[in-house]
Amino acid sequence: MKIHTTEEIVRYHETDKMGIAHHSVFLAWLEIGRTGLMRAAGHSYRKIEKDGAMLPVIEYSCRLIGNVGYEDCVTIETWIGELKSRTIKFEYRVLNDGRLIAEGWTKHLCVGEDYKYKRIPEHIADALKEYVKE
Amino acid sequence: MKIHTTEEIVRYHETDKMGIAHHSVFLAWLEIGRTGLMRAAGHSYRKIEKDGAMLPVIEYSCRLIGNVGYEDCVTIETWIGELKSRTIKFEYRVLNDGRLIAEGWTKHLCVGEDYKYKRIPEHIADALKEYVKE
Amino acid sequence: MKIHTTEEIVRYHETDKMGIAHHSVFLAWLEIGRTGLMRAAGHSYRKIEKDGAMLPVIEYSCRLIGNVGYEDCVTIETWIGELKSRTIKFEYRVLNDGRLIAEGWTKHLCVGEDYKYKRIPEHIADALKEYVKE
Amino acid sequence: MKIHTTEEIVRYHETDKMGIAHHSVFLAWLEIGRTGLMRAAGHSYRKIEKDGAMLPVIEYSCRLIGNVGYEDCVTIETWIGELKSRTIKFEYRVLNDGRLIAEGWTKHLCVGEDYKYKRIPEHIADALKEYVKE
Repeated sequence: MKIHTTEEIVRYHETDKMGIAHHSVFLAWLEIGRTGLMRAAGHSYRKIEKDGAMLPVIEYSCRLIGNVGYEDCVTIETWIGELKSRTIKFEYRVLNDGRLIAEGWTKHLCVGEDYKYKRIPEHIADALKEYVKE
Repeated sequence: MKIHTTEEIVRYHETDKMGIAHHSVFLAWLEIGRTGLMRAAGHSYRKIEKDGAMLPVIEYSCRLIGNVGYEDCVTIETWIGELKSRTIKFEYRVLNDGRLIAEGWTKHLCVGEDYKYKRIPEHIADALKEYVKE
Repeated sequence: MKIHTTEEIVRYHETDKMGIAHHSVFLAWLEIGRTGLMRAAGHSYRKIEKDGAMLPVIEYSCRLIGNVGYEDCVTIETWIGELKSRTIKFEYRVLNDGRLIAEGWTKHLCVGEDYKYKRIPEHIADALKEYVKE
Repeated sequence: MKIHTTEEIVRYHETDKMGIAHHSVFLAWLEIGRTGLMRAAGHSYRKIEKDGAMLPVIEYSCRLIGNVGYEDCVTIETWIGELKSRTIKFEYRVLNDGRLIAEGWTKHLCVGEDYKYKRIPEHIADALKEYVKE
């Protein structure tokens, strides 16, 4: 399978009084990871939404193994753990300088503009296939 | 004039590595102040938007005089500096335990769902009048 | 067991272009829930940190069942799923108007100012006991 | 004078129910702009803080001229409006695809770890000089 890789720098406002990136910031990085994967697969999430399909998060989980501080660079690795007709599960690893910082996953449900379930459009599912874990 | 007063507790994720609330958090508090004022005046901003008028921020300014830390209580005082047919300027003071922490203002333009300028609906302007600075 | 209950209003900046509270905002609410529980138990988290113990999040999970929008009121119910000598697991339910919106949990590790593991101070563990799930 | 330029992509959680980037997000971009300028001048803000000088924001102002939406690219231009012995004023322009979106400035005071005023260290002031507006 292919793994999508993207990098972000820790912003000042993302740190907290402990001096490290707040645990909620990891969700922003996972979002950057999966939307980067979609863009790399030829279907930006902006375009997907414009075409009438939304992929809201219905569940997420994250395990924090290490810390990162201000101006550290994080590498977000993203792939797809499961691709079904109406749901998709992204999996992630966050690293800093080769050191594993966090592991996580997010589950998404495909809905239309009426917020009713719908199948993930076929051309999008096709484009995502090479990122699916064997 | 009437002044609207509301209170908020500093959240952990709102602090930064300096150990104090990040300067951008004050904008969240000003937003809570002015939407609280509108609700107290009988027109919640949610209802105003549902009725087809939006009041996006077109300019803001904030002067920070003191710091607040985690779990500190901030008091936000809000009133209206200027109320015109299509714009409105809110003014604010943020206090902690009687001590002035920040002063600021935000300017808003009334637009419709098409993002074109429109007059602030009369019944809303009327309800806001008692908060306008003499 | 006792359950701690607290309420928050959805802020404008917490919504996203889908028109609902972004999934990362739930972590802010869980944080407000557990720090409210600690305060109710007689030990504010600010005080706990001042006394040299920190409880960083080491894992979290959240399942979103419904949506909330701007100015909706969320009720956060918090209790303790597991209390060990050096770790603590908080569990949460988030409701809107009696309707279940989300369920989640967070795991925390007790560390000292040197970021090394330490036992949760006994007087704090004692005070939290009545919130532990049987 | 030199102008520092950096680019950022609008994140999903940075949009609000109006469908555009929330006005508070501009402060995050200005922060990225000025810390990018400092890094380009040879003194990362992380290093400056480690060396015992902090530059907290004491005042800010921003005028919003246009909107940006999800996945839009913003260009942040940063230069220095005023450089005094103990204060510094950064000025900014935010553009999207050549179109001016916002103009703003932030004022900073140099303080030590004891939060008392101090002179901006000379080697830092020297390095910043080429970014000062004539």
